[in-house]
Amino acid sequence: MRAQQPVIYLVEPFGGSLRRQNANLPHVYWDDAAVTRGDGCFETILIRHGEPVNLAAHVQRFQSSAQLLGLPAPEAATWEKATAEAVGDFVRESGLDAAEVEAKCQWTYTRGRESTGVPSAWVTVRPIPQEQLDQRENGVRVMTAQRGYTLASGSDAEAAPWLTVGAKSLNYAAAMAALRWAKQNGYDDVIYVDASGRVLEGATSSVLVVSGGKLRTPVTGGDVLPGTTQAAVFTLAERDGWKCKEKALTVADLRGADQVWLVSSVRGGVRVTTIDGEELPAPSKKDEKKLRQLIDAALATPATS
Amino acid sequence: MRAQQPVIYLVEPFGGSLRRQNANLPHVYWDDAAVTRGDGCFETILIRHGEPVNLAAHVQRFQSSAQLLGLPAPEAATWEKATAEAVGDFVRESGLDAAEVEAKCQWTYTRGRESTGVPSAWVTVRPIPQEQLDQRENGVRVMTAQRGYTLASGSDAEAAPWLTVGAKSLNYAAAMAALRWAKQNGYDDVIYVDASGRVLEGATSSVLVVSGGKLRTPVTGGDVLPGTTQAAVFTLAERDGWKCKEKALTVADLRGADQVWLVSSVRGGVRVTTIDGEELPAPSKKDEKKLRQLIDAALATPATS
Repeated sequence: MRAQQPVIYLVEPFGGSLRRQNANLPHVYWDDAAVTRGDGCFETILIRHGEPVNLAAHVQRFQSSAQLLGLPAPEAATWEKATAEAVGDFVRESGLDAAEVEAKCQWTYTRGRESTGVPSAWVTVRPIPQEQLDQRENGVRVMTAQRGYTLASGSDAEAAPWLTVGAKSLNYAAAMAALRWAKQNGYDDVIYVDASGRVLEGATSSVLVVSGGKLRTPVTGGDVLPGTTQAAVFTLAERDGWKCKEKALTVADLRGADQVWLVSSVRGGVRVTTIDGEELPAPSKKDEKKLRQLIDAALATPATS
Repeated sequence: MRAQQPVIYLVEPFGGSLRRQNANLPHVYWDDAAVTRGDGCFETILIRHGEPVNLAAHVQRFQSSAQLLGLPAPEAATWEKATAEAVGDFVRESGLDAAEVEAKCQWTYTRGRESTGVPSAWVTVRPIPQEQLDQRENGVRVMTAQRGYTLASGSDAEAAPWLTVGAKSLNYAAAMAALRWAKQNGYDDVIYVDASGRVLEGATSSVLVVSGGKLRTPVTGGDVLPGTTQAAVFTLAERDGWKCKEKALTVADLRGADQVWLVSSVRGGVRVTTIDGEELPAPSKKDEKKLRQLIDAALATPATS
């Protein structure tokens, strides 16, 4: 399945018509705002057993990102239909049973071409990158880092009401630069902290901390993007008797915890094995498995219910 | 000339081979880092009298941006050749004498496709947008605004060595959002100030302040991108007897000045007529003309000498 071609559907954002795009041909114009300014938003959705996972939460965040960016509201039905078509093609072309197909689905929605002013929109479905599959097995060595910039908050934020904090935008170059730097220095991933030592989030994931029967995640909002996977894990975990809470956390809290996980839609859960080169105490096989199963179960929520 | 088609040349960044691209067809792939993360850099160059203006300064900043982003060094000869070819075609297709052709040239250089890892690069030449031509005549009403984020500096900046402050990167969505907000509220442009009231730069330009025989611009570096046009104006102005200096400036300094200008490569110089709705005292026709001629002359530097 690894060598399988991506499936791309172009979405006509207003009429809602769909068109399969040859993945070997370019479809983005030189004057698209995504290209010229990283101006747009996206969602990344896990396809498991041939079905999108946690779809409603992704739709909601996608609509919220679009609103923050001042883009016309994306219609849920259009994106769900495009996803169903693209996943359907991908499953068929895999030659596998739908139940066996796992994949990475991405929605992209940009401000569109300068020459037309019409937003561009498309859905891709492709194999999950091998690196992410490996990290699920082996965990990740993380580096803590400051973002290098501070976002205005409170009354300062009112001074820049157009800023799109909280949108999952295409302006990801800073996070990618931090990840590149981490990899060049022997780490797999980055956890952001602020100048006061407060833990924020992973470069592309949410932080989850396990201590006894408690699950903790940094307080979302402001410069911590609410994670769809973290939310799904909490919902399920609470039903199973875990005590779940957003909480201010320090790096010392991470080091003192039973387990630290990074959770995101497609990679799922990866356990943090070292922080800044220092090993975290390994949990028992049983405890680690319990967390893995919890996260897996949260990612198995049927797309539509 | 306004309706003339853009000319696009794709640049093979290592071999340096060039290929004309049909401007009516897309050439950017869905998995290009420019599209997925705004990861790349650019330069915008004025074409005047059929020649690129201030070319050496653009080459230098482009190379510096690429270095900050960790992209392979772009070869000056390759980009100069691509520009010459594209401008040559544009002039030919305009049906005008080269001396009459003014245009906007843009260089784009991205981290490339995820599937290939080879950077993408291209040059476009197209008519100058009408809005920019109008602003040259009529000046701009500006709004002052905080960026909404603070970049780490000094020892804090060492905490995030991968951050690409000072690169002219494709992560321009925040500036574009500020400009959109400004236009919705009856302004033409934005001048950034920091929380302490220090003037930084325009959303896409440098600030130039005229008082008597002195020219001032905010201190560059950190979160103020060195402007190629501002530098060219200073070089010429000093030769002509102006006293030129980078200086910490407040909004009150702007209000108290004889003239305030925003300078950038393609739009050139536009005079600021109002700041936050309050009119600036208009200079005499003669004084305004003097500045306009100075900026025009700085933008007439021959590309090759």
